[in-house]
Amino acid sequence: MEQSFLAYLRGRTSELPQVEVGIGDDAAVILPGPGPLVACTDQIIAGVDFELPAASLHDVGYKSMAINLSDLAAMGAVAESALVTLALPKENATQIAGEVYEGILEAADAFQVAIAGGDLTTYDGPLAISVTLLGRCPDGQPWLRSGAQEGDVVLASGAFGGSILGRHLRPVPRNELALAIRRLGVTVNAAIDVSDSLSIDLDRLCARSGVGVDLEVDAIPVHPDADRLAEQSGRRAFEHAWSDGEDFELLLTLSADDAGQLLAAAELPAPLTPIGKVIGRTGLWMMEDGKHVRLSPQGYIHGDQ
Amino acid sequence: MEQSFLAYLRGRTSELPQVEVGIGDDAAVILPGPGPLVACTDQIIAGVDFELPAASLHDVGYKSMAINLSDLAAMGAVAESALVTLALPKENATQIAGEVYEGILEAADAFQVAIAGGDLTTYDGPLAISVTLLGRCPDGQPWLRSGAQEGDVVLASGAFGGSILGRHLRPVPRNELALAIRRLGVTVNAAIDVSDSLSIDLDRLCARSGVGVDLEVDAIPVHPDADRLAEQSGRRAFEHAWSDGEDFELLLTLSADDAGQLLAAAELPAPLTPIGKVIGRTGLWMMEDGKHVRLSPQGYIHGDQ
Repeated sequence: MEQSFLAYLRGRTSELPQVEVGIGDDAAVILPGPGPLVACTDQIIAGVDFELPAASLHDVGYKSMAINLSDLAAMGAVAESALVTLALPKENATQIAGEVYEGILEAADAFQVAIAGGDLTTYDGPLAISVTLLGRCPDGQPWLRSGAQEGDVVLASGAFGGSILGRHLRPVPRNELALAIRRLGVTVNAAIDVSDSLSIDLDRLCARSGVGVDLEVDAIPVHPDADRLAEQSGRRAFEHAWSDGEDFELLLTLSADDAGQLLAAAELPAPLTPIGKVIGRTGLWMMEDGKHVRLSPQGYIHGDQ
Repeated sequence: MEQSFLAYLRGRTSELPQVEVGIGDDAAVILPGPGPLVACTDQIIAGVDFELPAASLHDVGYKSMAINLSDLAAMGAVAESALVTLALPKENATQIAGEVYEGILEAADAFQVAIAGGDLTTYDGPLAISVTLLGRCPDGQPWLRSGAQEGDVVLASGAFGGSILGRHLRPVPRNELALAIRRLGVTVNAAIDVSDSLSIDLDRLCARSGVGVDLEVDAIPVHPDADRLAEQSGRRAFEHAWSDGEDFELLLTLSADDAGQLLAAAELPAPLTPIGKVIGRTGLWMMEDGKHVRLSPQGYIHGDQ
């Protein structure tokens, strides 16, 4: 099916200026641009990252792009092109590929990403989608996990918890927010996207930066889905915000001055909330009765069993 | 296992100047270089592209890189960095990942490719390895399938047929040859690497260029493995050279002048043989008793069943 499917795909994909040669040669040719290239890759597999038919193939295709877009947003990068690899169950392979691709193309069109190439195989196994996304930081350096400075303010986009109720299949990656922040000219010292959980990913940022965070726990935005899930689970909504995965929000650290400037900006594409301050002592902390209490990061650690 | 395996991998991978930020952030940061970026991706899956335990995990890892290196060689590109995604059977996942990576790193070290990032998942399915390779054409334009001109000479590297006897697991991608050709300053009008078969891939190059080839069939280099396989299969060695897959040799078309200059060059990293001439009439042809006879491309078409 590969040759005929690639022919269909050539007809369905938008021509974008950043890709000079797309599907149909030995490799794609991507035009040089300003600044360093940023590249990430993430795969999702039926039975591990989603369940069929509970999730639609269209949503799964969309999600495979969105999780990679979120990684580029965390670098402050604009996505430019994608290489998409599908491993397809033998039964109904062409139909599955078509439906998955409709979701992939929806995300690609929404974020102006060119499908530059890919690979297709049918095999005796579950649907697996692997996306490699390439992008650039046109006007500056990529944001890294490792740059947080003592005294920085920690900002969180959106709200957290309960994505399993459905939001996890249709995440809105924060690329527009990242671009808007860049355009304001403020300096982001460190950034990460929340895939495993707010606490685990904030802890990762701290570990890479060699710092800790003094959290204002009550300020952490709890998503209405966390409230709804809490009614079912018997846990507190905050616990879901703290430990649930797949929010695909951004955590950013900036100097107090730059954070203030950013929070004063009108009309950002997503809300930003200050949730704590970077401190020299490693770990996640909160104040309780005038004392520092250490918090334990919790959630799903990807790939662990 | 992902976090601990990534820590092992960070220790095992060479630091190369082209990758500023490698494994351990949301995305890799790759420094800008001259010329357009060239990107390809290819996956191989147990039970489809190789059989375990007949193939060693080390060889399979090596092959997953080599087939992508071959795609970049066909563009005349130098490989710079790779993103590697593994889908691992749950049983013995860490051991399998380690052995596969030894083969990946062997190829990466041999061709000076930085492992810039990747993903790992354990699942209920066969070993699948997906590699995305990024490279550049530092001193010129990428070679495409579509540039063949009437009157060009068709050159083939190496020899063809019988790779199934073992060579297919340890292909030598022709990146050094491609670089040597670039350094000679000759113009390659079109190129492709032979993955499905000499005849199928030559036919693809012709289709993309809107031309045909008048072949000197007796000049096509037949690999000794094709002779050995012919003794087992009862077919002619030439049939194996014509229709067997996974030779990973290059087919190039150049003007007669440039081809002559190239063939006169001393000490190329691989032998080059003229096997035909590009003609305006589409299709693959040979002369027999003074008449043009059309030849049918044959071999394994990847993904077809």
